[in-house]
Amino acid sequence: MLRIFLFGATGNLSMKKLIPAFYQLLEKRQLPENVEIICIGRREFTRTSFQDFVIDRIGGERDVKKWFTFIKRLEYHQLRFDAPNDYKRLLEKIAIHEVDVHLFYLATDPRFFTIITRYLSEFGLLEYSNINQRIVFEKPFGKDLESATEINEVLSTYLVEDQIYRMDHYLGKEMIQNIMMLRFSNMIYEASWNHAYIDHVQITVTESVGVLERAGYYDQSGAIRDMIQSHLLQMLTLVAMTPKKYPDEETVISGKTEVLKALSIADAKTDVVIGQYVAAKGMQSYRDEKGVPPDSCTETFAALKVKVDLPRWEGVDFYLKTGKRLSGKISEIAIIYKETGKNLIPDCPTNVLVIEIYPKEGMRLTFNMKKPGTTQEIVTREMEFCQSCLVDYSAPEAYEILIHEVIMGKHDLYTRWDEVKYEWTFVEKMLHECGTLGDKLQFYPAGSRGPELADALLERDGRSWYSL
Amino acid sequence: MLRIFLFGATGNLSMKKLIPAFYQLLEKRQLPENVEIICIGRREFTRTSFQDFVIDRIGGERDVKKWFTFIKRLEYHQLRFDAPNDYKRLLEKIAIHEVDVHLFYLATDPRFFTIITRYLSEFGLLEYSNINQRIVFEKPFGKDLESATEINEVLSTYLVEDQIYRMDHYLGKEMIQNIMMLRFSNMIYEASWNHAYIDHVQITVTESVGVLERAGYYDQSGAIRDMIQSHLLQMLTLVAMTPKKYPDEETVISGKTEVLKALSIADAKTDVVIGQYVAAKGMQSYRDEKGVPPDSCTETFAALKVKVDLPRWEGVDFYLKTGKRLSGKISEIAIIYKETGKNLIPDCPTNVLVIEIYPKEGMRLTFNMKKPGTTQEIVTREMEFCQSCLVDYSAPEAYEILIHEVIMGKHDLYTRWDEVKYEWTFVEKMLHECGTLGDKLQFYPAGSRGPELADALLERDGRSWYSL
Repeated sequence: MLRIFLFGATGNLSMKKLIPAFYQLLEKRQLPENVEIICIGRREFTRTSFQDFVIDRIGGERDVKKWFTFIKRLEYHQLRFDAPNDYKRLLEKIAIHEVDVHLFYLATDPRFFTIITRYLSEFGLLEYSNINQRIVFEKPFGKDLESATEINEVLSTYLVEDQIYRMDHYLGKEMIQNIMMLRFSNMIYEASWNHAYIDHVQITVTESVGVLERAGYYDQSGAIRDMIQSHLLQMLTLVAMTPKKYPDEETVISGKTEVLKALSIADAKTDVVIGQYVAAKGMQSYRDEKGVPPDSCTETFAALKVKVDLPRWEGVDFYLKTGKRLSGKISEIAIIYKETGKNLIPDCPTNVLVIEIYPKEGMRLTFNMKKPGTTQEIVTREMEFCQSCLVDYSAPEAYEILIHEVIMGKHDLYTRWDEVKYEWTFVEKMLHECGTLGDKLQFYPAGSRGPELADALLERDGRSWYSL
Repeated sequence: MLRIFLFGATGNLSMKKLIPAFYQLLEKRQLPENVEIICIGRREFTRTSFQDFVIDRIGGERDVKKWFTFIKRLEYHQLRFDAPNDYKRLLEKIAIHEVDVHLFYLATDPRFFTIITRYLSEFGLLEYSNINQRIVFEKPFGKDLESATEINEVLSTYLVEDQIYRMDHYLGKEMIQNIMMLRFSNMIYEASWNHAYIDHVQITVTESVGVLERAGYYDQSGAIRDMIQSHLLQMLTLVAMTPKKYPDEETVISGKTEVLKALSIADAKTDVVIGQYVAAKGMQSYRDEKGVPPDSCTETFAALKVKVDLPRWEGVDFYLKTGKRLSGKISEIAIIYKETGKNLIPDCPTNVLVIEIYPKEGMRLTFNMKKPGTTQEIVTREMEFCQSCLVDYSAPEAYEILIHEVIMGKHDLYTRWDEVKYEWTFVEKMLHECGTLGDKLQFYPAGSRGPELADALLERDGRSWYSL
């Protein structure tokens, strides 16, 4: 039997992603038929009123009969995260029978991670080193290196690393999972995957929406902590790592931390650009968004040039770009190859291999050919394999994959403590070197390509952003 | 003014390819408006009856008015290639006025190459070292090394190399011209173009038709002399050459001859397979074809495994395959990459990069990805760029390109004497090592994939033919 405790069950993430993922997994029989799903939140609900709340909040096309049957099995337990008595009541309430795996899913603010873990342990729900009692910590794992380290230290008194699953849902995306598979199953890509052939790499994750209802969290965090520290650094790491032996888990994580430790920024003054959107095209300023202080200096945009100080990447620049309220929603990695040089055909457009994560999933290669009917003229062509365009394409949501991984007891798609630690180390050092962010902040019109300085960042190197 | 003398004007090639190519070039203004086209043949025609003959022989969709206007400007002159008087009459007949370029196109049996050249010279139509007097020699340039050398020696007493254009019409094909362009304008291909990443190369040029009306020539030649010596060796050379500096003509030709000199066959007993088609599926045997001796041992099929003894290609096998009456008409080069090896993801299908010449023109890459919804399962995908599928695609016929090259005085797409010499040297050595061809000859059913021994040739190496 499997028992799931979902902390933060009334929150946004639970409604949008987690509860639907449980449903899908159950439909696909990737959750056992007799799974217990105990939803836990601070809000006052009865089991029935919580179920009504779920029905009201989650839309979408689904088999209605199956959906209602599913909703009916959701339990609800009201609990204040810091109130021992509430844990006691929880303990009294849950049925006493054999449970093979306990899964605690903490979709809460990271400041509750330690207290929840502590009480779960103290009330005997979590047992040290019992790897059938697993706990998932939603992103962000802390808000800086200090708080992350603190959380981790506390956790390690109650849990061993194998019981801990640090979530970065980007790792569950098909094309993110694919980066290593593409690299390590294709000699044609492997052949060129180094500084001899690659000029630079662009990692772009942009959004067209604003801060939405997340201002409370986001204004404390900003683009660097919210996106760079996690998703973009993970993407960079997967592109740049050198595995000793794939897919051995230990080797992969060592390969990843090796990259994270090797990250540097030559000059934070020039190589880090941050921005914040202002009103344009009928969209309001970040500072006018609900829940944002009117003098906020939180960055809603960040672009950086990063070096990976490893032999494979000598001289190769990695550009990262992320932001809200930009002109499009794109997630991609563009590998830009070197110029052909003077002994081959000179002045050809460079090859670009794009790993497409959103809106399409797939890969795209631009290359040069002879223009038909001429003898020496070059024309640039494109080949693409679009996975998400396949007629019969259906890939599970990232969260389904990641929850299924925990149930299987696999850590492949979760981040180990040292990864998180080096991510935060890099980000902190960068923020420190940047000085006062308010002085650096560039304002850009909502719906634009971001601050002009972000373009200048590449133009200085004779380059330009590939897609946006 | 340009004056073209077309020798062999009543022959097949003239009707199917050359006269239509002149028409197209004139339409595109790549031939000057006042060009004179003097058709020369052994058959008795008046100018008018020759024009009627052309109208009767050449079909296809064309602007009829323009076509008839074109036909009306074709001159005809009857000439026996070995009769001096006939050249004298030709000389008397042609208008005397300023001519900038004389182009003599010899679409005749190679045995007439020297006599025609000699008489053209003796009657003052061809002047030694006048590079505005150019002469095109159709393929084959001789029937073996001895005859080719003999022809070349005679020609060199009347002409300098720059006046000589040795035709291999395959070099005029878009995708054959593209091989070097693809290699030398794309770092992603360049990166892997060597023995570290490429396992082997397959060059396939097959036909579904039989010997058609060419038995007279073909039975004296066979697949090796007709196809391998020219088209397939040129394709191999373009794939394998290392340019010192592209596209410098001298360097390119040196790079090509370097490859041709480095060709070897490890063991002709096992590495050369020849075959001849026998009746099947309502198609008759080669030996029953009109004009073929009933005991002919001429090969209509050849498959070989060739080594290129250069550092770049150490250990890489090149397989060539060509034949008539096979199950399909295909022309392609398949680059088969190495396996990923034990430190990457093992047991993946190998990458294949296909340069497609026929039926499509383009390139295709098979590669591996993660199967959606799984974590580690591999699925092989394909990306393609099909040039000939483009809606607005119109590339000139190979002959148009090649004739235009001569008019421009460019040799890029013609073979230099040393190329022809080393092609023949390789072929002769191979034929010598093969011993009596009749003993080696494998019979294969018309419309099949060819002799089973050709499959065994690859199976021995743990491989198989890629397309056919």
